Amino acid sequence: LGLGVGFIGSGWMARSHAHALHSINHLAPLEKTAELVAIAGRRADQVAGVARELGFARWTTDWRQVVADPEVEVVADLAPNDVHAGPILAALELGKPVLCEKPLGRDAQEARTMLDAARTAGVTHACAFNYRFVPAIRLAKEVVGSGRLGRIRHFRAAYLQDWAGSPEVGRNWRFERSRSGSGAVGDYSHIVDLMRYLAGEPRAVTAEVERFIDHRPDPGGSGQPLPVDVDDAYAAVLRLDGALATLEGSRCATGWKGGQLMEVNGSEGSLRWNMEDLNRLHVFTRKDEEEGLGGFRDVLVTEPGHPFLERWWAPGHILGWDATFVHQWRAFLQAVLENRPVSDHQASFQDGYRAAVVCDAILASAQQGSRIEIRFEEGGSPQAGRKREGGLR
Amino acid sequence: LGLGVGFIGSGWMARSHAHALHSINHLAPLEKTAELVAIAGRRADQVAGVARELGFARWTTDWRQVVADPEVEVVADLAPNDVHAGPILAALELGKPVLCEKPLGRDAQEARTMLDAARTAGVTHACAFNYRFVPAIRLAKEVVGSGRLGRIRHFRAAYLQDWAGSPEVGRNWRFERSRSGSGAVGDYSHIVDLMRYLAGEPRAVTAEVERFIDHRPDPGGSGQPLPVDVDDAYAAVLRLDGALATLEGSRCATGWKGGQLMEVNGSEGSLRWNMEDLNRLHVFTRKDEEEGLGGFRDVLVTEPGHPFLERWWAPGHILGWDATFVHQWRAFLQAVLENRPVSDHQASFQDGYRAAVVCDAILASAQQGSRIEIRFEEGGSPQAGRKREGGLR
Amino acid sequence: LGLGVGFIGSGWMARSHAHALHSINHLAPLEKTAELVAIAGRRADQVAGVARELGFARWTTDWRQVVADPEVEVVADLAPNDVHAGPILAALELGKPVLCEKPLGRDAQEARTMLDAARTAGVTHACAFNYRFVPAIRLAKEVVGSGRLGRIRHFRAAYLQDWAGSPEVGRNWRFERSRSGSGAVGDYSHIVDLMRYLAGEPRAVTAEVERFIDHRPDPGGSGQPLPVDVDDAYAAVLRLDGALATLEGSRCATGWKGGQLMEVNGSEGSLRWNMEDLNRLHVFTRKDEEEGLGGFRDVLVTEPGHPFLERWWAPGHILGWDATFVHQWRAFLQAVLENRPVSDHQASFQDGYRAAVVCDAILASAQQGSRIEIRFEEGGSPQAGRKREGGLR
Amino acid sequence: LGLGVGFIGSGWMARSHAHALHSINHLAPLEKTAELVAIAGRRADQVAGVARELGFARWTTDWRQVVADPEVEVVADLAPNDVHAGPILAALELGKPVLCEKPLGRDAQEARTMLDAARTAGVTHACAFNYRFVPAIRLAKEVVGSGRLGRIRHFRAAYLQDWAGSPEVGRNWRFERSRSGSGAVGDYSHIVDLMRYLAGEPRAVTAEVERFIDHRPDPGGSGQPLPVDVDDAYAAVLRLDGALATLEGSRCATGWKGGQLMEVNGSEGSLRWNMEDLNRLHVFTRKDEEEGLGGFRDVLVTEPGHPFLERWWAPGHILGWDATFVHQWRAFLQAVLENRPVSDHQASFQDGYRAAVVCDAILASAQQGSRIEIRFEEGGSPQAGRKREGGLR
Repeated sequence: LGLGVGFIGSGWMARSHAHALHSINHLAPLEKTAELVAIAGRRADQVAGVARELGFARWTTDWRQVVADPEVEVVADLAPNDVHAGPILAALELGKPVLCEKPLGRDAQEARTMLDAARTAGVTHACAFNYRFVPAIRLAKEVVGSGRLGRIRHFRAAYLQDWAGSPEVGRNWRFERSRSGSGAVGDYSHIVDLMRYLAGEPRAVTAEVERFIDHRPDPGGSGQPLPVDVDDAYAAVLRLDGALATLEGSRCATGWKGGQLMEVNGSEGSLRWNMEDLNRLHVFTRKDEEEGLGGFRDVLVTEPGHPFLERWWAPGHILGWDATFVHQWRAFLQAVLENRPVSDHQASFQDGYRAAVVCDAILASAQQGSRIEIRFEEGGSPQAGRKREGGLR
Repeated sequence: LGLGVGFIGSGWMARSHAHALHSINHLAPLEKTAELVAIAGRRADQVAGVARELGFARWTTDWRQVVADPEVEVVADLAPNDVHAGPILAALELGKPVLCEKPLGRDAQEARTMLDAARTAGVTHACAFNYRFVPAIRLAKEVVGSGRLGRIRHFRAAYLQDWAGSPEVGRNWRFERSRSGSGAVGDYSHIVDLMRYLAGEPRAVTAEVERFIDHRPDPGGSGQPLPVDVDDAYAAVLRLDGALATLEGSRCATGWKGGQLMEVNGSEGSLRWNMEDLNRLHVFTRKDEEEGLGGFRDVLVTEPGHPFLERWWAPGHILGWDATFVHQWRAFLQAVLENRPVSDHQASFQDGYRAAVVCDAILASAQQGSRIEIRFEEGGSPQAGRKREGGLR
Repeated sequence: LGLGVGFIGSGWMARSHAHALHSINHLAPLEKTAELVAIAGRRADQVAGVARELGFARWTTDWRQVVADPEVEVVADLAPNDVHAGPILAALELGKPVLCEKPLGRDAQEARTMLDAARTAGVTHACAFNYRFVPAIRLAKEVVGSGRLGRIRHFRAAYLQDWAGSPEVGRNWRFERSRSGSGAVGDYSHIVDLMRYLAGEPRAVTAEVERFIDHRPDPGGSGQPLPVDVDDAYAAVLRLDGALATLEGSRCATGWKGGQLMEVNGSEGSLRWNMEDLNRLHVFTRKDEEEGLGGFRDVLVTEPGHPFLERWWAPGHILGWDATFVHQWRAFLQAVLENRPVSDHQASFQDGYRAAVVCDAILASAQQGSRIEIRFEEGGSPQAGRKREGGLR
Repeated sequence: LGLGVGFIGSGWMARSHAHALHSINHLAPLEKTAELVAIAGRRADQVAGVARELGFARWTTDWRQVVADPEVEVVADLAPNDVHAGPILAALELGKPVLCEKPLGRDAQEARTMLDAARTAGVTHACAFNYRFVPAIRLAKEVVGSGRLGRIRHFRAAYLQDWAGSPEVGRNWRFERSRSGSGAVGDYSHIVDLMRYLAGEPRAVTAEVERFIDHRPDPGGSGQPLPVDVDDAYAAVLRLDGALATLEGSRCATGWKGGQLMEVNGSEGSLRWNMEDLNRLHVFTRKDEEEGLGGFRDVLVTEPGHPFLERWWAPGHILGWDATFVHQWRAFLQAVLENRPVSDHQASFQDGYRAAVVCDAILASAQQGSRIEIRFEEGGSPQAGRKREGGLR
C-alpha cells in the first residue's frame, strides 16, 4: 500500500528527487512505500525517457494531469520558477500535500499567495531548502542550539559558482525575470534560509546587485542574442538582533563550482562549512583555548551519533549531495503520513515566503540605494501544530 | 525481464551494494533490470529485516540456497572473508558470474583457487576494489595514462582509521586470523590494488606489522577477553620498475576516520587524493611552473566531462562514497550482460589474487625481517578476451 | 655613512620596523646603512628598555625631540592614530621623508592635511600598507596586471580576528574614537588598500557597522567600566567599475587570529589568499579547464623567480609576516636615497588619504542607511614623478 | 663586551645563521652581544661579498684561520658535510664551543669521532636540527610530554622536495658520496631527529633507497656528465618500543617544495604538522569525541603563551622558517654563556651521532635487504649535567 507521488518538472532536479524516493524505499522504508505515479515535463520526447528511467508509471506534458491524477496523493514541484504557483495552487485546491523547490514563488507576493493557500488547505507543505538536511548543517544547528557558541555576532555566507561566467552560456529561463523572478538572488536563496535557520531573523538589509553579461545567445538557435534582465551576482549586509550578516551570491565567480561557504561567529565559539567539503563541519570554542590548544576542529560528520547517520555507511565514508534529498523527503513524507506540518527543522511555505521577502528586500535596497527594513506579513500563527522534534533530530 | 542477483552477506556492505543496484535501475538502467532475488545472512532475525528493507524477494541463513536458487543468475559475496571461497566456488561450479568483496581469499592460495575456478567456469568475475570507480581515481588513471606525469617515481598510500584504537572494541571476526586471513594488511588491500592500478606491479617488498592490543572483549558476552592474532597496522616499502612505493595501513591511527591518502609522483607531474575529500583530485605538472605559477590544482571532479559524471548531478554537487558501488556494479553487469570479462579498469579475480600475493609477501617480510620478491604465479593468459575500453572510460 | 632614522612609537610595531631595518642592513644592504638614531615613547621606563633592545642610540618621551634631532633624516611614525598628524606634519615642515603607519589620519580630513603637507614638502612619503609587500600579493598584482584574469568582476576580502571578543579586554586607545578615528573600519583598512591595489577604485559604498561590547574595563585600573565609541565590526559592499566588492572586518570573529582573506574573480581566472597561509597564492584560470583539469593551483611563493625572493631562503622555506616590513622599508629607503616618490607598488600618502576617504564613506553609509558616492578630492597631479617599475617588481 | 662567533661556510645557510644572530642582538639580546668576527668560504670573490653583507669583520678562504682566530670564541660549521669533522675537531681541540649543521658527520663513525672529541673538550656542542625550534614542534613536544596522546603507536614523516627532479640539475657536492655521505637519507635526517625527539628511540629499521638519475651535468662546465653515487630517495619502516614509524625522503617528489610532513598517533590523541604551513599544529584528542565534535584542531601557534612567542609579533602574524634559527641560536648561546651542555630540547652531538647511526642503518638495510638492529654505542653518560628545562620551554 503505497503513497502516490507526482512530479512537476523532469530535469536534473527530478532525477535528484526520484533518487531520494527510491533510496528511502530501499534503505530506510516508511510505513508506506513512495510510489512514483506520474511526471510532467515540457517536451514529450524528453519526459518519456525520464519517466521510464526514473520509474514513473506515466508521464504527460500537461502538469494539470499530474495534479489531478487520483493516484497522485502528494505533489512535488521541481519545475522552473514560473511553474511553481500554478501547480501548487491547483494541488492545494485538491487538498494534496505539496513540496516545492526553492524559490517558492518568483517574488514575495507570489510566495504569500502560495503560503495562504497552503494554510487554507491545511495540508503538509514544504519548501525544498535541502541544505538544512546536510548532516553537518544539522549538527551546526544543534551546536548553535546548545548555546556553545554564546550569542551570535556574525553570520556570513557566499554561494559562488561560475557556470554563467562565459557569455556563450545561452539565455535560458534563469536569465529571464518573468520566468525566474531574479537571478543569483533567488537562485541562491539557500543562504538566506541558512541564515534564518542558524542565526535568526534579519531586520534590515542593504545590498547591491550586478549583471556582468547583458545579452546571451538564444538557446532556440535564432542566432540573435537575447537580453538578460536579472542579476548575475549580489552582495548584501543584514542586521539581525545583535548580529551582522553578509550574504553574497554569484554565478560568475570563476573557479568556484559548488562554493557554498557558511560561517557563524558567536561570543564563545564559531562554525564553518563549505558545500564542496559537504561532510565536514569546522567548530571552534573559546574553551579549547584555555589549554593553549585552541583551533577549529575539523569534524567529519559521519559518526554513528551524528544527525541522519544511523542508516548510512561506516564512519569516514562520505555522503553525497543527494543524501540531503533522502533526509528531506523522509522528513516530509513522515509529516504527510502523520498528517501534520513539517517539523521546525524543515522549511515550510512560511520559510519559503520569508526567504522571498528577504530576496525582494535585497533587490529593492540595491535599486533604491538605501537600507530596507524587512517585514514579514504572513499573518496567522504559523507555528501552530508544528512539531518540535525531541532529541537530536 | 530482469537479471536475478543473490547476495551472500547481510551487513552494511550488503546495504551499500543493494543501494547501488536500485540506483542503477532507477537512474542509469541497463538493458535488463537487476532483480534482488535472495539474500543470505547468519542470523535469521537480522537477515529477515534486511531483506525486507533492501527489497529482496527472499532470504535464508544458508548461503547454499542463494547460490542454488535458479532465479539467482549472479552471485555477490559480501560476507566475512572466511565465507568467500565457499559460496564463490559453488557459484562458479554452477556457471554463475560472481562479484566478490575484497580481499578475495584469506591468502594467496585461497585466492588462486578462486581465480582458477573462475577461469575454468569462463564466466564474468570481479573483485570489489571499488575505489577504482571513484571519479577522481579514474581521472587519475587517465592522467597517468596520458603520460602527463612522465615516468612514475613514487607511489605512496596510507589507509588510516581509528575504529580499533580502543581496547574496548570487541573481538569480532576481523581480529581472528582463521576468519579474516590478516588484519590491516588484507582489510586495507585497497591501497595495494590502487598501487597496481596506478603505478604498476611491485617486484619486492620489505615490511613490518604491529599489533597494539592483544586481547579484546568477547562480543558473545562471556566476559573473558579473547586473543587477537592479526595485525592492527603495517607499513611496507615496495620496489616497482624504477619506482619506490610506500604503503601503510592502520586501524589505530587516532583521529582518522576515512583517511585513505594516495599520491603519485612522476618525473613531470604528481597526483594526490584523499578519500575524506572523495571528489577532489590534486594535480601538479612541471609545465605549470614555467610561468611562475606552479602548484597542485585542486580539481573538483564533478564536471560533465569527468569520468562517470554524465548521469549524476550538476557541477559542484559532490558524490558520496556509495556512488563508487553504482559505477562498479554497472560496469560489472554490463560485462555480465555481454558475457565477457570485466574491462581492464575493473578488478578481476586475477587482481584479487595479485593483491593477495602482495599481502602475503608483506606478512612474510615482516616475519622474516627481510625483503621478499613478489611473484605472481597465476599462469594462463589472463587478459585474453578482456575488453580494452576506448575513450575516457 | 648611514641614513639616520627616528621612530615615533615604541610598541610592537616599533619592534617589527626595527627588525626590518636591521635585516636590510645585514641581508640586503643599501648604499647607506640605516642608523637607528632615536625613538620616542610615552612611558620613560618602557621606552628606555625598548631603545636598548632595538639598538637605538637615544630615546625620549617627547616625539618633538626625535623629529627635530639633526641626525634623524627619516621619520617613521608607528604610534597610535592620534599621534600621526602631529609628528608627520612637523617632520614634513623640516623637509624630512616620512613613513607613517596606517591609517594615515583618523579621518579623511586629517589624512588630506598630511597629504597636502607631504606634497608641499616634496619629500618621499609612504603609508605602511605592508601587505602590498607580501610576495604572494605582489605575485597576485602581477597576475592581475598580465591580463590573465580577464576583467575583474568580484573582489572580496575579510579581515577577521577575535582579540576584542571578550568583554574583559580593556578600553585601550583602539576603542576611543577621539584617538583612533574608528574601530575595525580604520584598523583593517589594509583590505581597503588591497582592493584599490588589485581591483581598482571604488565608486560607491553601502555598509553597516556594529559594536558588540559597549563598555570595557579601565586599563588604568579605576574599576569603572569605560564607554566604547567605535565599531567592533563592519561589512561593506562597494561598486567598482564593472565589479562588485565586499569588505568585512571584525575584532570579534571568534576563532580567527590573523584571518585576512582576499579573493579576486575575473572573467578568465581568479586569485585567493589568506594571511594565515602567508606564502601561498591560489590561482585559477579557465584555460586550465580545457583539459578537464581545472582547479585552483596552490602556488607556494618561495621560488627564486618570485617577487622579493631572491635574497631569502631556498624554495619551500617560508617567510614570516615580518618579511613584509623588510620589503617595504627597502623600497621606501631606495626612494629616499634617490630622492623620488615611492613606486606605484608602494602606498603613498595619496593612498593613505584615499583609504581614509573610503573608510569615512563606510561610516557615513552605515549612519545614513544609504549608498554613498566615493569622491577623492586630493587635487594635484599626484602621480607626477612616480616611478613605474619595470620588470616584475 | 661581545661573544665572538666564527662561521665555516658562506652559502645560504650562513645567511640564515647570521640573520639569526643579528635578530637576537636586536630583538632578544643576551647578556653578551654576538659579534660576527670571521667567516670562511671556498671562493674569495664570493666570501668577501657575503662577509660584507652579513656584517663579518673579516673573511678568509682557509677555515683554519677562523678556528684559530683568537677573537672567535664560538665556531659554527655551516659548510658542506665533508667540511664538518675537520673544523669541528680543530675547534674542540682549542676548547671552543661548537654548533654544527646536520648531518653531523658523513657517517656514524665520523659523527662518533666528533662526539667523543666534544666530550673530551667539555664544551657546549649542538647539532643544528633546527626544526626542534619551530614553535609548533615545541608545542607538539609539550603535548606528547603531557600524556595527552596516551601511548605513541605511530610516527610518520616524509620530507618531500623536487629540486633534484630534473636531470639538468648539476652534480654538486650533494650528489657525491665522498663529500655528502649520502643523499636524501642524510640530507633529510631532520625527520630522523624529529622521530627521536617526539616518539622515542628506534630499535630496528628496514628500508629501501632509490636513485632516479645516475648522471648529472658537470657544474664545472666540462660538458661531461658526472656520475651520481648517492640516493635520491629512501623509505624506511622503523620499530620503536611499541610503535611503528615510517620515514620517507625524496628530492624528486615533483610538486613538493618544502613538504616536511610529520604525524604522531597515540592511543588517546594525534598530532600533525607540515613545514609548508609552519605555524600550524593539528591536534586531535579522543576526549573531544565524547561530545560528537571530535576532529583535528588547527592550532595557529602564534599566541602569547605558545613556545618562543613572547618576543615576536601579535597573534595571527606568522613566523618564518628563519625564526627557528633565532630560537636555536639563543638556546645555544645561553648554554655557552652558562658554560653548560645544551638543554634536552636542543640536539647535541649525541643526537647528531644517533641520527647518523639511524641513517647508516637505513643504508645498510637497503643494501642487505633485511631488517637491521639499531645500536647506539656512544658510551659515557651523555646526559650528565644536561639541563632539564622547567616550564614550557
